[in-house]
Amino acid sequence: MSNYWSQIIRELKPYVPGEQPKENLFVKLNTNENPYPPSPRVIEAIVKAADSSLRRYPDPNCEVLKQAIADHYSIKKDNVFVGNGSDEVLALSFISFFKQSQPILFPEISYSFYEVYCSIFEIQNIRVPLTADMGIFLEDYTQPNGGIIFPNPNAPTGKLLSLDPIESLLERNNESVVIVDEAYIDFGGESAIQLIGEYANLLVAQTFSKSRSLAGLRVGAALGSEKLIEGLERAKNSFNSYPLDRLAIAGAVEAIRDKAYFRATCKKVIKTRERTVAALSKMGFSIVPSMANFIFIRPAGIQARELYTRLKDEKILVRYFDKPPIDEYLRVTIGTDADMQTFIEKIKKIIA
Amino acid sequence: MSNYWSQIIRELKPYVPGEQPKENLFVKLNTNENPYPPSPRVIEAIVKAADSSLRRYPDPNCEVLKQAIADHYSIKKDNVFVGNGSDEVLALSFISFFKQSQPILFPEISYSFYEVYCSIFEIQNIRVPLTADMGIFLEDYTQPNGGIIFPNPNAPTGKLLSLDPIESLLERNNESVVIVDEAYIDFGGESAIQLIGEYANLLVAQTFSKSRSLAGLRVGAALGSEKLIEGLERAKNSFNSYPLDRLAIAGAVEAIRDKAYFRATCKKVIKTRERTVAALSKMGFSIVPSMANFIFIRPAGIQARELYTRLKDEKILVRYFDKPPIDEYLRVTIGTDADMQTFIEKIKKIIA
Repeated sequence: MSNYWSQIIRELKPYVPGEQPKENLFVKLNTNENPYPPSPRVIEAIVKAADSSLRRYPDPNCEVLKQAIADHYSIKKDNVFVGNGSDEVLALSFISFFKQSQPILFPEISYSFYEVYCSIFEIQNIRVPLTADMGIFLEDYTQPNGGIIFPNPNAPTGKLLSLDPIESLLERNNESVVIVDEAYIDFGGESAIQLIGEYANLLVAQTFSKSRSLAGLRVGAALGSEKLIEGLERAKNSFNSYPLDRLAIAGAVEAIRDKAYFRATCKKVIKTRERTVAALSKMGFSIVPSMANFIFIRPAGIQARELYTRLKDEKILVRYFDKPPIDEYLRVTIGTDADMQTFIEKIKKIIA
Repeated sequence: MSNYWSQIIRELKPYVPGEQPKENLFVKLNTNENPYPPSPRVIEAIVKAADSSLRRYPDPNCEVLKQAIADHYSIKKDNVFVGNGSDEVLALSFISFFKQSQPILFPEISYSFYEVYCSIFEIQNIRVPLTADMGIFLEDYTQPNGGIIFPNPNAPTGKLLSLDPIESLLERNNESVVIVDEAYIDFGGESAIQLIGEYANLLVAQTFSKSRSLAGLRVGAALGSEKLIEGLERAKNSFNSYPLDRLAIAGAVEAIRDKAYFRATCKKVIKTRERTVAALSKMGFSIVPSMANFIFIRPAGIQARELYTRLKDEKILVRYFDKPPIDEYLRVTIGTDADMQTFIEKIKKIIA
């Protein structure tokens, strides 16, 4: 604490990201990274972009990247916003749309950064409880609000909502912005991007960190009506004109364009998820049905916290949230088949 | 404008960065980029870092880069903060230190982003006029305030303050944070970094975009007492956990380490600046004494606005600010000797 800090900074409880060990000694299943490298075309594009042009500012509007994303989703460039990871995109969305007289709504168990954005931007919020089976029930989001945000699939549960309840929500909640945070949508869900033409208040957030294997490059996007995108551009241009560097732009463009690689990678992760779920079920673990690249599991025969610690001793990192009611669960990223086999074997050894 | 925008976003007048033409048809003297490429060691490091590890998040604390910067300035790692360009570093500084009950002070003619940060974060401010010869006179910064910020050298004038008046300001203004924005310090100024051990309220902002030829990579830093850096980390971790990607970290580390290249490049820019000033003086132009990689000039025999347009027709881009009292000036980045010769020749042609 310091006298020089503003009141807001004093009161913040910053987000704590998952551990990033310096050495590669761990099977790292704690931050939902993709176990597969980015497309070779991404690496090529970056190497090509690493030249004397780095002395020049990047395109502040990232036109080439926006166009590539627009082409991929068959929308217009003006429906696309890009930023320094989906965290920056979300932060700017909170300032742009959620700083309202009414509180915003989001699930009680959800991406914990939402609360933090509310503190830093002084936004009132109401956290809506999950259902008994850890689902988001959008009919509970009925009170007057300054905005609604939820991840789909939800984090850290992995549970997916279909587009029907999302569309119903959009129909009845048309006075505030609804953000669907689709960080994990490519592992089995259906994107709400197809609805942006119909609902001017729908913003879909996506990231290149998960399904496109580019957590190390920091690229996120938001897709929505032109007016929402224009609002985000205003916020961005009042905060940081050039959030995406030349290399990130070059790499992200190829990540979007290499559709075959993207589909193959997602498929592999999904298959491994299914195998892992089957193995853990056999061992009596409860597993929340997941459509993400992670699973949320309740161990059998051992407390979650203890299993987390014992796995760490065995050089396997998973994520444990020390906060009821999710302190009986572990969030486990889906790695390669080999990673998950090691994971299962170590658990068997620990429990035995 | 949209009903979905927050009041803040509606009222914003976003910063307008200098034009970034898509084709390389222009002699580009409008955004203070370095005319020389980054060190070859930077390119090598980036190419090496462009591998499968991009699937993993970068180090959220950027320890290696902080240590490299600390070593360079003979300070400690805990005195260093890094961000996505000095714009992000400044934005986070405004939230962390300037959101106070008293207004902040900055020069009336200065980096125009300061006003924009004040709007987006709702910070009151008082703009202190320059002296008749376009200088910052720090004895004018005496009123009670929630913080003080000024660029040194100032932008867009290029005028440098020595450390004496800065130290006097720090002595008498010890209840609020003083930010010295040293984006251009390496082209002939003396950095205030040597004072951070003595003044707990001094924050020095720097960028890799100018003297280190890396505008395309988006890296900035702030240097100050541990408490100030801790405040910035709190803000950063409430906004975006991983603002620097793996490639930017790798490149920036080498940019800092290659001191010989850095010194040689700065020297070349300074020499070209002197030659350019001499040539323009001969033509009767007034030039504000500059210690930056740009000059602020008042044309003779032609209006600034007209010269800006005519130069653009001749495929030379400079910066014109359509705002009294600086609308009689042009800000011209120092390019290579060849660039500046073209610039001078075109002016002669236009005036003749």
